[in-house]
Amino acid sequence: MAIVALCYASPMPSPALSWLSCIGCGATAPLYGTLKFTCPKCGGLYDVEHDFSAIKKEGVDALRKIFDGRTLQSADDVCSRSGVWRFKELVMPSLANEEIVSLGEGVIPMWRAGSNLREWVGGDLDLWMMPEGLTPTGSFKDFGGTVAISVAKASGVKAIACASTGDTSAMAAAYAAAAGMQCAVVLPKGQVTDVQLAQPVAHGAKVVLIPGSFDECMRVVRELVDAGRVFPINSINPTRIEGHQASVFLANQFFGWQIPEAFVVPVGNGSNSSSIGKGMRLLRDLGFTDRLAMLIGVQSDAANPLATSWETTQKDGYADPKAWLESYKPRADLGETSATAARIGAPVSYQKVMREIDASRGAVLTALERDLNEAVMVAGRDGHLVCPQTGTALAGLRQAVERGFVKPGARVVVISTATGLKFPGVATSQAASSLTETASCDTEEVAMAIGV
Amino acid sequence: MAIVALCYASPMPSPALSWLSCIGCGATAPLYGTLKFTCPKCGGLYDVEHDFSAIKKEGVDALRKIFDGRTLQSADDVCSRSGVWRFKELVMPSLANEEIVSLGEGVIPMWRAGSNLREWVGGDLDLWMMPEGLTPTGSFKDFGGTVAISVAKASGVKAIACASTGDTSAMAAAYAAAAGMQCAVVLPKGQVTDVQLAQPVAHGAKVVLIPGSFDECMRVVRELVDAGRVFPINSINPTRIEGHQASVFLANQFFGWQIPEAFVVPVGNGSNSSSIGKGMRLLRDLGFTDRLAMLIGVQSDAANPLATSWETTQKDGYADPKAWLESYKPRADLGETSATAARIGAPVSYQKVMREIDASRGAVLTALERDLNEAVMVAGRDGHLVCPQTGTALAGLRQAVERGFVKPGARVVVISTATGLKFPGVATSQAASSLTETASCDTEEVAMAIGV
Repeated sequence: MAIVALCYASPMPSPALSWLSCIGCGATAPLYGTLKFTCPKCGGLYDVEHDFSAIKKEGVDALRKIFDGRTLQSADDVCSRSGVWRFKELVMPSLANEEIVSLGEGVIPMWRAGSNLREWVGGDLDLWMMPEGLTPTGSFKDFGGTVAISVAKASGVKAIACASTGDTSAMAAAYAAAAGMQCAVVLPKGQVTDVQLAQPVAHGAKVVLIPGSFDECMRVVRELVDAGRVFPINSINPTRIEGHQASVFLANQFFGWQIPEAFVVPVGNGSNSSSIGKGMRLLRDLGFTDRLAMLIGVQSDAANPLATSWETTQKDGYADPKAWLESYKPRADLGETSATAARIGAPVSYQKVMREIDASRGAVLTALERDLNEAVMVAGRDGHLVCPQTGTALAGLRQAVERGFVKPGARVVVISTATGLKFPGVATSQAASSLTETASCDTEEVAMAIGV
Repeated sequence: MAIVALCYASPMPSPALSWLSCIGCGATAPLYGTLKFTCPKCGGLYDVEHDFSAIKKEGVDALRKIFDGRTLQSADDVCSRSGVWRFKELVMPSLANEEIVSLGEGVIPMWRAGSNLREWVGGDLDLWMMPEGLTPTGSFKDFGGTVAISVAKASGVKAIACASTGDTSAMAAAYAAAAGMQCAVVLPKGQVTDVQLAQPVAHGAKVVLIPGSFDECMRVVRELVDAGRVFPINSINPTRIEGHQASVFLANQFFGWQIPEAFVVPVGNGSNSSSIGKGMRLLRDLGFTDRLAMLIGVQSDAANPLATSWETTQKDGYADPKAWLESYKPRADLGETSATAARIGAPVSYQKVMREIDASRGAVLTALERDLNEAVMVAGRDGHLVCPQTGTALAGLRQAVERGFVKPGARVVVISTATGLKFPGVATSQAASSLTETASCDTEEVAMAIGV
């Protein structure tokens, strides 16, 4: 299996429109054709940057009109069939439409929270959930995956690899299959649900289970990336971030191009929360909005290195970024949690998360295991089957309301990161008592079981 | 548990705009407030009918404009947040928007079939899949569920019941929860996947497992309905059909209001296939289109009463409806199949299916178990995780191409009825060999397993 790129697409997309920029030292590198995503000078992570001068000339109103027009899907326009590429001019303006590898990610509804959940969260919020589990592979990863795989394809990459807690591997395998690439995924044995495991297998990936945590999987993949032996599709690859920004664009478009008061998102490896921050800044910088929403990241108490360091640093809800960085350390002794997809002690994108939380005057909170499971159960009673990571976000929001970080009546969007279908055990464990079996198919016996 | 309606909403929606009409003898009954859905005169099933005179006056162009405008979602308009209620004027014009119980069903992309699948099906088709599994409960049932529960709510119903092979119970439980109703579901023990079982439990339904097939579950529920003891949310309730029509409306809108050459759909209880036929006729009768697409229903060889009778009757691809009905009989000795959701020997809506297949000069075909599983595997290699019922439809389409029923190059839409996430075992069984475990977290050992 030759995983590294063997050749580059010809002609390459315009390198002048998009490039890489180190968040540590500011050094730049080409976007298309780069195979490692740590700065050779300082070891820092990269951001993707774009030349938006053409867009600025076009103007915000013209762009809004384009984006709104693309909500009407058509067979002839790939950008209309994706809630990510609907915003192509913001997400990856340098890519030709022919290079797009899309599975129709991000064409999703917005969910108004039901009465049970609104009461449980409190604060009489104008509360919405963005169900990013209603995507092709069942999680938010598709938002970034479509961009990462499209850029990789345009760069001539023939095979990819990733570490995963389940959702990333599903995404990587599906999009690699759609692009005609090979794919290898490294997973922590016993930490991934059967449903999540079935996905990379169905999409023809090489699946390797190792006897360690996600952080071990990530270490192995990073070593292979650094040695030039695999091309990474983990969020160390910053093209992922560009696609995840679409959550913000979708929410803004939904509210008539008004930004809500707060976005709440579970934090695992940090790709989603940092993307939302970056997307908010982009909308502000281009003139779509005049402010940022508050970004609230939430971790379970089993894996909360960013939240504990934020709490020890913060005063009245604000953590000085230098002091926060100094007090931050990865967590090795992870607890058990049903929110397995965010059970990560050393988030790759921790610096980016800190940057965005600071920029938006946000917070990183800890949700107790009991509370995040309860949130899943409560959402279920409204008809919304959410994953335990979404439960984490909801429990964090409840805490944010209690602590006064989110004001009563505020319009809040919770990113629901995956479908509850991937975590059937969590849903069932909350309410197994309503299940009965009859000894026969007799109508009266069934009627008695129902209670009529 | 008081399942039957205790009171009716006041004021009731206009009875003059929508009513029930027996497909056997033509007798009519009110829509709102009716609790049993078999004709008291002849025992036939009901259709829902509407007074479309206002719509006809408004004109097709004005309606298209409304429907296209609703693709841009907004917080203020529930019809914009649903791919079913986007077409409210066609689906249930008599219902007030305030009565709508929606979970955002039908806001989905269209999938262009990948190269592996197109080659496997043959005929160089312009092949599309409509991924109805990317809905809140993971299957097409949500399309009908939102309408059935909304009408039930407007009728004052406080509690509902259904028999199910898995997907209907998930839908019923979720929408009942959203509407604040009680729900009871009767399932065949051992015939429902764990994922499917978790759904009604998560949504707080009373779940009863009985030691029989789906057909036994259906018999029990029908007896309880006939006795006035439960309110049915099975497709015997014809309001379901009204919502399922939206598949046709969505596809037509997607192709710029042009109808494709054929719709292909798996046939279980018959609700989806008959809805597609009805929706096509409605578009034609209102002037949206000037013809019907060919409707191809497909059953697995484990449960194919409609297909076997169609085959014995058909000549050159056309079955005389009278002869077909005479040769039809339910099948009691069901085979084993991975397409469990369509493992039904006595489809409730068989007469409606026959009517729509005849009207569209369509066919009902049998897919072999080996072929339907292979179709799932092939779609997976394109990045599309489909359910075994979708595999049934795809295998039937391949046969239709081979037999000349579908012409080369035709534009075809396959209804992908549920997400493959509900059937992880099927996906995994096709390709388990690519899964390896390492003894350690050593980078070189993992590299060897990957093959780099």
